Amino acid sequence: MAIVVQKYGGTSVADAEKIRRAARRVIETVKKGQGVVVVASARGKQTDQLVADALELNPNPPKREMDQLLSTGEQQTVSLFAMALHGMGYDAISFTGGQIRMLTDSVHTKARIKSIDADRIHRQLDDKKIVIVAGFQGVDEHENITTLGRGGSDTTAVALAAALGARLCEIYTDVDGIYTADPRAFERAVKMDRISYDEMLEMASLGAGVMHPRAIEFGKKYDVTIAVRSSSQDTEGTLITHEVPQMEGVVVSGATIQRDMAKIGLVGVDNIPGNAAKIFAHLAKAKVVVNDIIQTEISSEKANLSFMIAISDLDAAKEAAEQIKSEVNCQSIFVREDIAEVSVVGVGMRSHYGVAEKMFGALAEAKVNIDSITTSEIRISCAVDEDQAKRALEAVCVAFELDKPAKMREQ
Amino acid sequence: MAIVVQKYGGTSVADAEKIRRAARRVIETVKKGQGVVVVASARGKQTDQLVADALELNPNPPKREMDQLLSTGEQQTVSLFAMALHGMGYDAISFTGGQIRMLTDSVHTKARIKSIDADRIHRQLDDKKIVIVAGFQGVDEHENITTLGRGGSDTTAVALAAALGARLCEIYTDVDGIYTADPRAFERAVKMDRISYDEMLEMASLGAGVMHPRAIEFGKKYDVTIAVRSSSQDTEGTLITHEVPQMEGVVVSGATIQRDMAKIGLVGVDNIPGNAAKIFAHLAKAKVVVNDIIQTEISSEKANLSFMIAISDLDAAKEAAEQIKSEVNCQSIFVREDIAEVSVVGVGMRSHYGVAEKMFGALAEAKVNIDSITTSEIRISCAVDEDQAKRALEAVCVAFELDKPAKMREQ
Repeated sequence: MAIVVQKYGGTSVADAEKIRRAARRVIETVKKGQGVVVVASARGKQTDQLVADALELNPNPPKREMDQLLSTGEQQTVSLFAMALHGMGYDAISFTGGQIRMLTDSVHTKARIKSIDADRIHRQLDDKKIVIVAGFQGVDEHENITTLGRGGSDTTAVALAAALGARLCEIYTDVDGIYTADPRAFERAVKMDRISYDEMLEMASLGAGVMHPRAIEFGKKYDVTIAVRSSSQDTEGTLITHEVPQMEGVVVSGATIQRDMAKIGLVGVDNIPGNAAKIFAHLAKAKVVVNDIIQTEISSEKANLSFMIAISDLDAAKEAAEQIKSEVNCQSIFVREDIAEVSVVGVGMRSHYGVAEKMFGALAEAKVNIDSITTSEIRISCAVDEDQAKRALEAVCVAFELDKPAKMREQ
Repeated sequence: MAIVVQKYGGTSVADAEKIRRAARRVIETVKKGQGVVVVASARGKQTDQLVADALELNPNPPKREMDQLLSTGEQQTVSLFAMALHGMGYDAISFTGGQIRMLTDSVHTKARIKSIDADRIHRQLDDKKIVIVAGFQGVDEHENITTLGRGGSDTTAVALAAALGARLCEIYTDVDGIYTADPRAFERAVKMDRISYDEMLEMASLGAGVMHPRAIEFGKKYDVTIAVRSSSQDTEGTLITHEVPQMEGVVVSGATIQRDMAKIGLVGVDNIPGNAAKIFAHLAKAKVVVNDIIQTEISSEKANLSFMIAISDLDAAKEAAEQIKSEVNCQSIFVREDIAEVSVVGVGMRSHYGVAEKMFGALAEAKVNIDSITTSEIRISCAVDEDQAKRALEAVCVAFELDKPAKMREQ
């Protein structure tokens, strides 16, 4: 029997009617002769309510207890989901992370999965039961409940699909797939039929929020095809898969825009071994997430170093920068706020020339000034003025024909 | 280190302020050098809300899933309780029933405890941690979550005290102890300092609702002293203990009133072996709880048989009685509604004469007509008209001086 894993997020199970709708979709799949394993998140705003309850008692609650508390949200959903299926005449059984031995390390609130007991689930599927598993949670080797952090239920679903040898992991959510760009920023963006893990990883890291990078990494590592679909519509969605030859023909698959960024520059740092490490150790200690590090030599002894951060981390980053100023013999620090980053992503870049030229040309034509540029093997990012960002994205999208389905592009 | 188990019911942990108050009481006990294990119930109306959520999806939800769902209520309380203690500077750790291997049978919604892993709790206590355990829940040998049914958290607390060798199990609730009678029915009732397990069992079975009989049975079996105390006041409460010699001096410890009863009589049943068994098998199948069975011979072949039931079971009981009427060759069935039962309970009855006489005399003087009488070794019950019941209870309470502390009675 082919097994499919279906993951339903919090908005897809927010109330009784939505749970019933999801249950009907599960039944449709069962009727096709497939074994279905459902992974469900906490209902709607349940997690927010529990967090509020916790903070009312302790502004800094111990993480182990936070996991013990938050894991109840998914446990409630899965038992209710199983009840709904029973009510519709289908046998179902719900499991917590602990009950299927979703073994993790002991890093509470962001644990990593070590192993899963697929046997217990296989036995239930063999018994013709629909299996409903609580997402986001596991247990460590001492039976402490752990949670997987942001995007945890997606990771549970993909990891389960891998452990069960499922052909497909379907992620049901409130969007109907992955778009070439965020439709709020570029209205003519189109849904992609297919995207590679690497492209999706780049886009997720660049703020395309549909799926968490960890779940995509799991899919890539264990070769699980992930389908992102709408829980309210019957459309095909987008497949996240390994690269296939025709993907190479598409130079740019998608574009992203990251707003609310800031850039910090350290001017005239002593260019000696260890200084860069010192700087980023201080920033890490201040829990600042750093992107797009650029270092350039300005003389044989001195270098300029800049990096991008989220604007919300600006105060912490400035403080950390001031602290290390004398340590690395930095001449001055500059800060640029109101900056955004526009990126294009595509595995086709590996084998095509002229992508950077086309992007810079489109930005020039749109009269967008480029502050700085960084690239990876399959990505080009340009930092631009926040108030020119939307224009920049549109220009780039039009240049790479991201308003057309991939097979209709001339690029 | 002496260990004490403290159980806090749903109303005692209903909100953040109440959890904090309970936490302060725990800390007071810790400061006295005792190891404290807390057992907590679900907050306030949480369980009712979860039941409503379940019934919205399935009017007849599978019991395993119901247990999976309802057990989250206690899990939330214990993690929040531990967070509150951390916030006050005390190290605490919460456990679900599964995490301390509260092993039960697999009878979902009314499982029975088989064993407890006391070692895990002892290790935490040795580490100077306060241990918070979810009441009401366990796991069976297949890791399915089970619940213990009504009074389950009390049972958890007493069973834990037994397993840990705790000197005392304190039950914190919204009343300040056990009274000689329900103060709503007899205003001058007084709080008892001490009551024996057997007396408390009789009183609990007769509707004195403070504690569930199963918890008391556990206390009796494993010799755990149970203290029933107010969670909002600092008073001594009532100790439930083994019999001690001075208890014998008190003839009647308490009186109870059970309202909303009905009596069903089967007149002229063939008095042959097996007929009584047939009748009560039918009633058990109809899930009717039967009390106070009375059978009297009316001739060498015929007997009358009557029993008391809760008025809520009346329709089911009448239907069952009609079904077996011909089977046992019964001449007629009579039903009496609007009946109540007034009882006196006391281990002193075993060694004192004249208790029944005194009770009947008091009822006669109050012009209360007695419908029927049943007795146990330490109890006398009289069924009376519902509208005479309060007068009957008052007369009995006055006759046995239940408006005075035990040591001040002349009886």
